[in-house]
Amino acid sequence: MMELEAIRGLLAPADTKILLLVLDGLGGLPVEPGGPTELEAARTPNLDRLAAEGIVGLHQPVSPGITPGSGPGHIGLFGYDAIRYQIGRGVLEALGVGFELQANDLAARGNFCSVDAAGKITDRRAGRIATATAQQLCAELQEIELSGVEMFVQPVKEHRFLFVLRGEGLTEGVADTDPGHVGDPPLPVKAETSAAEPTATLVRRFVEAARERLADHAPANMVLLRGFARRPDWPEFPEVFGLRSVAVAQYPMYRGVAKLVGMDTVEAGASLEALFETLARVWPEYDFAFVHVKETDQAGEDGDFARKVEVIEEADRLIPRLVDLRPDVILVTGDHSTPAALRSHSWHPVPFLLWAAAVRPDAAEQFGERWCLNGGAGLCRSEALMPLALAHAGRLGKFGA
Amino acid sequence: MMELEAIRGLLAPADTKILLLVLDGLGGLPVEPGGPTELEAARTPNLDRLAAEGIVGLHQPVSPGITPGSGPGHIGLFGYDAIRYQIGRGVLEALGVGFELQANDLAARGNFCSVDAAGKITDRRAGRIATATAQQLCAELQEIELSGVEMFVQPVKEHRFLFVLRGEGLTEGVADTDPGHVGDPPLPVKAETSAAEPTATLVRRFVEAARERLADHAPANMVLLRGFARRPDWPEFPEVFGLRSVAVAQYPMYRGVAKLVGMDTVEAGASLEALFETLARVWPEYDFAFVHVKETDQAGEDGDFARKVEVIEEADRLIPRLVDLRPDVILVTGDHSTPAALRSHSWHPVPFLLWAAAVRPDAAEQFGERWCLNGGAGLCRSEALMPLALAHAGRLGKFGA
Repeated sequence: MMELEAIRGLLAPADTKILLLVLDGLGGLPVEPGGPTELEAARTPNLDRLAAEGIVGLHQPVSPGITPGSGPGHIGLFGYDAIRYQIGRGVLEALGVGFELQANDLAARGNFCSVDAAGKITDRRAGRIATATAQQLCAELQEIELSGVEMFVQPVKEHRFLFVLRGEGLTEGVADTDPGHVGDPPLPVKAETSAAEPTATLVRRFVEAARERLADHAPANMVLLRGFARRPDWPEFPEVFGLRSVAVAQYPMYRGVAKLVGMDTVEAGASLEALFETLARVWPEYDFAFVHVKETDQAGEDGDFARKVEVIEEADRLIPRLVDLRPDVILVTGDHSTPAALRSHSWHPVPFLLWAAAVRPDAAEQFGERWCLNGGAGLCRSEALMPLALAHAGRLGKFGA
Repeated sequence: MMELEAIRGLLAPADTKILLLVLDGLGGLPVEPGGPTELEAARTPNLDRLAAEGIVGLHQPVSPGITPGSGPGHIGLFGYDAIRYQIGRGVLEALGVGFELQANDLAARGNFCSVDAAGKITDRRAGRIATATAQQLCAELQEIELSGVEMFVQPVKEHRFLFVLRGEGLTEGVADTDPGHVGDPPLPVKAETSAAEPTATLVRRFVEAARERLADHAPANMVLLRGFARRPDWPEFPEVFGLRSVAVAQYPMYRGVAKLVGMDTVEAGASLEALFETLARVWPEYDFAFVHVKETDQAGEDGDFARKVEVIEEADRLIPRLVDLRPDVILVTGDHSTPAALRSHSWHPVPFLLWAAAVRPDAAEQFGERWCLNGGAGLCRSEALMPLALAHAGRLGKFGA
């Protein structure tokens, strides 16, 4: 793939607009031999029309056989090589709860856990305590004072929390304290480099103070921390692709990943209807909009084939509203596959359609995995989609003379 | 492609099993316009059923247009980038004759050659002397003593022999003495780095002693050496992929390449029947088995289209025995193409089928190049096959959150 900086060097002025609609976890599997996938089973006359007029294909997130999380899945769609541009665990956790990470912040994923009298871990998730309990415990830990830095302990869900230090000179390179198994005590807080020593010392103080404050709160009588990471400093999407860009999404995680690459973000109501209305409102101000629909993935994770079909059909009914916005390029796809048959994200390539005036047409008459397999865009890497969209939008000049 | 170490980091525990059946040189070409390839011409009801239930595709060894030798062909199938993980010529020669290379060994490929009175090469292969003659000459050279190191001169076939030095401190970086053409004398033994000087001195002594001992043995009155290499120190296949792994093969070369990446190896009798019986015997102890069938390649090299078809059909009749072992994932492919029409290895992508429960089905009804061209696995790099097999075996966790 061409490097982001090289793509940036080819940008050509245009006042065209690109719309990226992500139906999270769109790719699926049949539930019976020879049967349709979720997308194939869904009645999608509007998406089918776009597929017939445009081209379809499959994109491979990360690398063949690799199942991506939401972070790498979207990073790829945004045109970034997901192996090179990896989002640290702590940063992802912050994105997920909508915590505004600043340049000076160091974030980690926290777990409340259970330890026995000898300090050995007996449950890495503290019996999955109720979120309400975790909220109280987080408030308790928030009282801890660490000289010279600010600290945030924010509940996520059940036993999970976000831990953030804010201050000058904080570094990555602090090792996980979660050994990944029960029977041993939490790992001591260690700096992986000498530069990380001062940061490790602060974390160590927090962990010791947490141990004291949680002593009487079994089963949540200790904490585990992992994935210490700072907000990455990556090339910004709006500059790389020359697009005033906005993300319209219901969930903090997806707005967060978009914000990480420099997009503006807009919150949207819970219904698809509300999502598309929000898009219509902000659309005039932008050249690029990323619209995120979560429910397809949720249905897949729940193993609910029928529900996933229903969400796809619901999205399809609203497609005319997108078309009415008169984008020059429409991309519809998922960030990865979430087949209801597997009840989880999977490694299978993801169907996409690209609608634009300048496509070289293929034979696809509908939007579905089998059509995509023989589509005009072939099987490509996820990060190829943005350059393809830009090209079809007349926004890329010639490479070489 | 994802790095081997990164794949290792994603391993998830599972007690699933993977079977890789390599029909060496499987890919073919039609012998008449519009005609079938060898695989297409063969009646293969059992492979066809696996292809129909699974997915098919083509894999590209090394790089488009590049014809791989057996070493790179297999290294790719084992998941290693064949350009980055290159096996030195001397090491390949050792693998081919089943010589057990140790960590301290330095191996080279040797040729007996003919030189004239002025010492200039007149035949780089000494008239392809009989193997029996070469055996006598190797015994003669084996008498040479080099202080401080052990030495092995082992006949291979006709004019070819294996030369191995064993001892402390031997290095690569000794240049070939074979100029690659006649009319000049053999190149003097040269160290390419100063670190290689002591090793070059030993090799020089051997070459001079060989010249004296062979003086009266025209046409084999001199030796040429090339491809000085040590056994590479690569990530081991069983650790990288988390699989107790075994290679079942009739020929030393294929057991050798498998051993190089840390697989256990088992010798098998000459018939396909014996090969599959050996597999069945060791199968319970392993998570992964690589089974190698040589005759397809041999028939291709002989330009014997009908014989290649016959071997494929013979393998097909034994496929039910593989299925009876109840592997979770079955991969059937070749290490490269060897079209009878070309009488040699070729650069053409290689058909493969992947059978597993979690495949996203494609339209393929049979196993053959034309079906593979539009198969669900597309055209991928050879080293993608192992991650794909692992994913379908439920042995890979999510990348990122």
